[in-house]
Amino acid sequence: MSSENEPRYIQVHPQDNVAIIVNPGGLPAGTEFPSGLVLQEAVPEAHKVALVALQPGDAVIRYGSVIGYTARAIPQGGWVAEDALTSPPPPALDALPLATETPAALPPLEGYTFQGYRNPDGTVGTRNILGISTTVQCVAGTVDYAVRRIKQELLPKYPNVDDVIAITHNYGCGVAINAPGAEIPIRTLRNLSLNPNLGGAPMVVSLGCEKMQPSQMLPVSTLPVLSEEPYVVRLQDEEHYGFEEMVSALMEMAEKRLERLNQRKRVTCPASDLVVGLQCGGSDAFSGVTANPAVGFAADLLVRAGATVMFSEVTEVRDAVHLLTARAANEQVARDLVREMAWYDEYLAHDNVDRSANPSPGNKKGGLANIVEKALGSVAKAGTSPLAAVTGPGERVTTKGLVFAATPASDFICGTLQLAAAMNMHVFTTGRGTPYGLAMAPVIKVATRSSLAKRWFDLIDVDAGKIATGEATIEDIGWEIFRLILKVASGEQQTWADRWGLHNEYALFNPGPVT
Amino acid sequence: MSSENEPRYIQVHPQDNVAIIVNPGGLPAGTEFPSGLVLQEAVPEAHKVALVALQPGDAVIRYGSVIGYTARAIPQGGWVAEDALTSPPPPALDALPLATETPAALPPLEGYTFQGYRNPDGTVGTRNILGISTTVQCVAGTVDYAVRRIKQELLPKYPNVDDVIAITHNYGCGVAINAPGAEIPIRTLRNLSLNPNLGGAPMVVSLGCEKMQPSQMLPVSTLPVLSEEPYVVRLQDEEHYGFEEMVSALMEMAEKRLERLNQRKRVTCPASDLVVGLQCGGSDAFSGVTANPAVGFAADLLVRAGATVMFSEVTEVRDAVHLLTARAANEQVARDLVREMAWYDEYLAHDNVDRSANPSPGNKKGGLANIVEKALGSVAKAGTSPLAAVTGPGERVTTKGLVFAATPASDFICGTLQLAAAMNMHVFTTGRGTPYGLAMAPVIKVATRSSLAKRWFDLIDVDAGKIATGEATIEDIGWEIFRLILKVASGEQQTWADRWGLHNEYALFNPGPVT
Ligand SMILES: [Ca+2]
Ligand SMILES: [Ca+2]
Ligand SMILES: [Ca+2]
Ligand SMILES: [Ca+2]
Ligand SMILES: [Ca+2]
Repeated sequence: MSSENEPRYIQVHPQDNVAIIVNPGGLPAGTEFPSGLVLQEAVPEAHKVALVALQPGDAVIRYGSVIGYTARAIPQGGWVAEDALTSPPPPALDALPLATETPAALPPLEGYTFQGYRNPDGTVGTRNILGISTTVQCVAGTVDYAVRRIKQELLPKYPNVDDVIAITHNYGCGVAINAPGAEIPIRTLRNLSLNPNLGGAPMVVSLGCEKMQPSQMLPVSTLPVLSEEPYVVRLQDEEHYGFEEMVSALMEMAEKRLERLNQRKRVTCPASDLVVGLQCGGSDAFSGVTANPAVGFAADLLVRAGATVMFSEVTEVRDAVHLLTARAANEQVARDLVREMAWYDEYLAHDNVDRSANPSPGNKKGGLANIVEKALGSVAKAGTSPLAAVTGPGERVTTKGLVFAATPASDFICGTLQLAAAMNMHVFTTGRGTPYGLAMAPVIKVATRSSLAKRWFDLIDVDAGKIATGEATIEDIGWEIFRLILKVASGEQQTWADRWGLHNEYALFNPGPVT
Repeated sequence: MSSENEPRYIQVHPQDNVAIIVNPGGLPAGTEFPSGLVLQEAVPEAHKVALVALQPGDAVIRYGSVIGYTARAIPQGGWVAEDALTSPPPPALDALPLATETPAALPPLEGYTFQGYRNPDGTVGTRNILGISTTVQCVAGTVDYAVRRIKQELLPKYPNVDDVIAITHNYGCGVAINAPGAEIPIRTLRNLSLNPNLGGAPMVVSLGCEKMQPSQMLPVSTLPVLSEEPYVVRLQDEEHYGFEEMVSALMEMAEKRLERLNQRKRVTCPASDLVVGLQCGGSDAFSGVTANPAVGFAADLLVRAGATVMFSEVTEVRDAVHLLTARAANEQVARDLVREMAWYDEYLAHDNVDRSANPSPGNKKGGLANIVEKALGSVAKAGTSPLAAVTGPGERVTTKGLVFAATPASDFICGTLQLAAAMNMHVFTTGRGTPYGLAMAPVIKVATRSSLAKRWFDLIDVDAGKIATGEATIEDIGWEIFRLILKVASGEQQTWADRWGLHNEYALFNPGPVT
């Protein structure tokens, strides 16, 4: 392997006329690469260098796709900065290839298992958690209080239960419950309480006078167990005389569920019982060449093993939609994808913004010039298998294979919606670095650069930056992620986020207004 | 005083043709009142009885105002149920009386003081709290972790500091930061960190790559102290090698602020330094005859003492706007009120809903037939003084006297926006009951009914239900609330919410889309 200081760039696709600088801190003007290319100006780390001279209006090609057009002439070896690019319009939704290049199914991958908790509905938990659902924000303070006491006084008696979590949120009242789009937060909350890691033992805390009643959020008909015993504590019920009796009622119901959860044991489950949600946040130009392709390789391994793999983040898929509709398993799936893109286009246009609102200053500093470049790097997470299904925000995913679960790109909204979609393992790639974590499912964090992985040694679980330095291949890191998923799913290894207890709040996607 | 079981109803205004039933559990058909009125059917507690026979299309009058028109004939002594009323349209905004009936200023009330913490900017805290602001949701898990350690390891060394709170939220990235309306969540977060109870010693935790940068949320120019020493910890800064160093950096900056806050002492302040936010939640038909008028009386006392009193909740004011524009101190204030109403009308109409989305099932069960009836009861909180100023959502209030601070009615969004408006005391009335609480300012909870106050003896601070039973007058309870505000503001008495540590999360009002 060549020295760390040797100037390096990465060209992803043979047709690309730009490449990105690998060296930490970037490279100065005059740097000569082994290929003979000489930098005409300083180019920051992860930013793009022109491999050929570009005239104004020339197409700039990365990932083999046009990411924009040059706004001015750029010499060979020049920096292709954000302001040197104009963005192309997004692909029109009415002229997309529908299932025209459906890939052949990948060869099955057999023999991979993990130790999980099998649920009555056939899903499998990677954790054994008591979740306490809430219909409305008003009860959050009381539920938080009760959870503190349950953890102190009850949980120690039930050693097979991993945790007790309150599913609190800002919805349920003070909202237009009949507005278009209100079904999204409502089904999200329902499906969160059905997450495989909660053992099929939901309990619900309601105030009483809220707009979203328990019968709407989680009707008795949802699960057989709900008709067998009470599952709702209503704080306004006349039977509760004072705060302490409310807390006692919560703790009593919680203890019944803890008893049941405590009797469960991990059993050997095929890898096909995994529901892995993929996401990226704080992305940079390395995301699309290191972490995301490695996750894409792991996604293919999971699909080959029969698992469900979800990718999401509509605004980061929009500009690559033509690649995905072509890859759909059939025309209906392609049309479902178009439907979700159209819904989001309209959602944004309704407020006079568009997908260009997505990239953050950090993305741009990290070398991502625009949403097209970000999207092409983002969809690398999806690997190469056929797109098997598409679901709307907050819907439960039941299909095996690669699924597009439509969500905003906002990290915690996406994570929350993927949990509602039945995610039992989360893989999160980051270039700029974010100390992201969720209470309901383990989060494996993958760094796009070794410098981040080294600096955040106690937050990052996998260093995909080795791909850029040549120390590892995409396949190596893909297998590392795949094996780590099985280990963490089995409870044999803890993620860094779980080690520190870094658990962000649930963030609902509510497209409707508040009142 | 007459027996508890004697049938009672309350007619608020002499012109009213309906009254509400006071007796717990309601009254059966055939009940005869001392006035001679006989119930023709059972009427639930807090619901309306017709005092005269009503023909279809007749105006139903409560609070001296039309709350709707009868959809069918109702006999004298009949139940005026929700479905027997059709709602009138809201007052047109282009034909309102502007400052036509400005009341004379109320006589000054002198000599009332409290013990508070005076801040460099002239505001006064009722608490001495270290607040840790955040630019983006990504840092919330880390800040929560640090706050747990600060409370355990540092706070005990600084006994004059009341609490350490993390101002976490779901904004800062994954949002359209340039969308119309984005200034609302941004200024809300800025002004939250300037709340008088935080002692003018803000510190900010940033990730680094987020859209809302510290310089946008809290520019150095905001406060003199910000240019004197560092006030931002940026987790992505290269100086932090690993999670534990990030936490150390947070704790180090926090300790400097704890040292300074610990040197502060309560001093005697005039009642005019109070900024009292008023709100109602879980309202019923008693709200407008017991708790809200009593709070309105206390509001007048506060205004007479020179304090700032805010009321809010646009959708609950909209149908009473004509009463308030007439009461404005001058035409400009009246126009400002119209501007906020128009903004909200448009905000709701943009998503095809209107103010009728406000009342909850609990409101209706509680006897509030529609938003008109709810609004007329809600504005009773505002007392009788001239309307001195109107501010937009998240703006800081600097005017003394009665101020309309525009907010949604949603309890925690309203509370959060009132904290941003510089609230140092909160008074919250409730009929159905809600265990509401805030970490940043004390919340005094006032029950509309004695049955609730008795059942929730350890959550409700003031029982205004005694007004309905005749055990106390509006003036009695108004004075009780006023005196309790001074005591709680002085730290001499704890509210029930603070006793249990019931502190709901901040809920931002973001009219823009997420990305
Ligand atoms: Ca992303
Ligand atoms: Ca994301
Ligand atoms: Ca929390
Ligand atoms: Ca209200
Ligand atoms: Ca409210």
